[in-house]
Amino acid sequence: MASRLITLTTDFGYRDPFVGIMKGVILGINPEAHIADLNHGLPPQDLMAAALSLGASVPFFPRDTIHLCVVDPGVGSERKPLAIDADGYLFVGPDNGIFTLAVNAMKVRKIIELTNNQYHLQPTSRTFHGRDIFAPAAAHLSLGTPIQELGNSVNDFNRLPWPGVNKNKDGIEGEILYLDGFGNMITNIYESELAAIPSETATVSFGNHTIRGLSSHYSSGENKHYLALINSWGLVEIAIYKGNAHLSSR
Amino acid sequence: MASRLITLTTDFGYRDPFVGIMKGVILGINPEAHIADLNHGLPPQDLMAAALSLGASVPFFPRDTIHLCVVDPGVGSERKPLAIDADGYLFVGPDNGIFTLAVNAMKVRKIIELTNNQYHLQPTSRTFHGRDIFAPAAAHLSLGTPIQELGNSVNDFNRLPWPGVNKNKDGIEGEILYLDGFGNMITNIYESELAAIPSETATVSFGNHTIRGLSSHYSSGENKHYLALINSWGLVEIAIYKGNAHLSSR
Amino acid sequence: MASRLITLTTDFGYRDPFVGIMKGVILGINPEAHIADLNHGLPPQDLMAAALSLGASVPFFPRDTIHLCVVDPGVGSERKPLAIDADGYLFVGPDNGIFTLAVNAMKVRKIIELTNNQYHLQPTSRTFHGRDIFAPAAAHLSLGTPIQELGNSVNDFNRLPWPGVNKNKDGIEGEILYLDGFGNMITNIYESELAAIPSETATVSFGNHTIRGLSSHYSSGENKHYLALINSWGLVEIAIYKGNAHLSSR
Repeated sequence: MASRLITLTTDFGYRDPFVGIMKGVILGINPEAHIADLNHGLPPQDLMAAALSLGASVPFFPRDTIHLCVVDPGVGSERKPLAIDADGYLFVGPDNGIFTLAVNAMKVRKIIELTNNQYHLQPTSRTFHGRDIFAPAAAHLSLGTPIQELGNSVNDFNRLPWPGVNKNKDGIEGEILYLDGFGNMITNIYESELAAIPSETATVSFGNHTIRGLSSHYSSGENKHYLALINSWGLVEIAIYKGNAHLSSR
Repeated sequence: MASRLITLTTDFGYRDPFVGIMKGVILGINPEAHIADLNHGLPPQDLMAAALSLGASVPFFPRDTIHLCVVDPGVGSERKPLAIDADGYLFVGPDNGIFTLAVNAMKVRKIIELTNNQYHLQPTSRTFHGRDIFAPAAAHLSLGTPIQELGNSVNDFNRLPWPGVNKNKDGIEGEILYLDGFGNMITNIYESELAAIPSETATVSFGNHTIRGLSSHYSSGENKHYLALINSWGLVEIAIYKGNAHLSSR
Repeated sequence: MASRLITLTTDFGYRDPFVGIMKGVILGINPEAHIADLNHGLPPQDLMAAALSLGASVPFFPRDTIHLCVVDPGVGSERKPLAIDADGYLFVGPDNGIFTLAVNAMKVRKIIELTNNQYHLQPTSRTFHGRDIFAPAAAHLSLGTPIQELGNSVNDFNRLPWPGVNKNKDGIEGEILYLDGFGNMITNIYESELAAIPSETATVSFGNHTIRGLSSHYSSGENKHYLALINSWGLVEIAIYKGNAHLSSR
């Protein structure tokens, strides 16, 4: 069997050795492991950003991929280290909600608390479970170790609340959920919420700004003016063509 | 046949999931794909930086490599999505000039507009062709799909103008083309332009600074003084040993 | 024989093509090379950060891994380009101390100055040995070229001094050795130095701050208060749970 792909998502950034250490642990256990970096520049300790990042990426990967995610402000506390099998996709990381969106539409088959310390590095620190518990778990899964070998089955895992929208006679009220690196402001309003509203007549208001109509793409906006569009995740997004909407709005 | 190597170059940065999404698309289509990250921190929407980056990197890669580049401010507009075969190297990305330098010395064999929507993700967004058109094209090429399957042949593609130098009796006048992350200021003056000028007596002027002589390497400069040298791309560069020439010049 | 793994560690950052160029050189020489990015965001020209990064990562990798590190402010000067075999791990990079910690506990078998220009790119620049000397050396090692083919044996290599701690009747005096990207302040005081001091009664002082007791993990700290703990490298570290200790201390 070809070795399973392992993806890495963290908030470790790019100036420290923490990501490299995790790769060493994985490759030390499975020298044939195939590792793909997704994203290590997540806003530090931002669980919603981690959840959105995985939710947007995971559906495109092959089933059987192992998604290792370490955004873990509670490392060493009572929060559980988990491995989850959902529709054959495997997830490894802390039980703090980061897998909420990725597994949202999937059938969860198994949730395992990583209690079997045969699969932990020894000694096991209380400050870097990415190295000592999660990377070894992903590496052993990539070698074909059955998920239930890694610990005890548990019944559920933590999910982040998805902030709801308010619908009233004036329209739909949502919020900015995520700022991307281009300064685009991504809301929690799905295209499907807008079904009855034609995109030419939709009005998007935020702060004291009003945008008339939804654009189809970024470069259809006028220079330095806000535009709104349905982004590639199906969400209403506020942007400025060749500009930074977030910085301009402050 | 071994799967062809795919390189990725974008201005997506490192805090968002966009690069990971493209990897998912590629690996979802070709789970054996071999992907190498070149650079995702290009200055946003800077076509010249993208062209320079590819121009400096591509010649070192094996023929048959697929270079996927997404710096694409015009996504969703009339600009064409392309795949190019030049001397057997394959390029995939928007028709906005980013391949200018990489293919400059190559014989272009085929230019294909990616019109065949059998090879697009469905539905196809107008905001993220990296995900919906370019990543699938690269993945299918890596599986051996002939380039002409991906769409219609077109006659030419857009090239960026290379800013020329002025030669007069006082010397050669160029401009700063690129600032690298160390703060080195890279000009558009090639070493070959200097053929007649001995490096000891060359004088490099910028702003109200004058540098006498060309150095052979960075550490031959005096601390905190500007030096000029021929850099690894064959271009005149202004630097400060263990310092940041760009920040010091402002 | 499976191709040996090559890891890359640099201070080249993520906005320039320099890392991609090195990957091109490696894959141009060995198209089957397996490359893992460790860290390209090291503080520029910071030899101690490079040494700490490699020291923390290397022990987890399989023997036979080739660790290529280019933090090289002296490129083109008299500093030697080296390849080192220590306990079967291979290291390639400049002789400026960056391998100090990684090989500290290893038996050094061979130290080779990379003088054999058959294995250099031609022409060889004096500004980018990462491209012209180090990447080719790593690629040839990954193909099985014996290390002694790459140049002449030399007797020793440069090591960075490890800043010592002072022990006196008041306690142990150390210094901040490294700031990580979370703002955690990592000292040069190893846990083993504290053997006689119970963690509940230990007192950590810096600037005009005093921390009572060592915490076991980050989230055991009170919000916005400094805490001290033994970090995952075995060193005393000062941190703030969900905060940035370094920024708060300035």
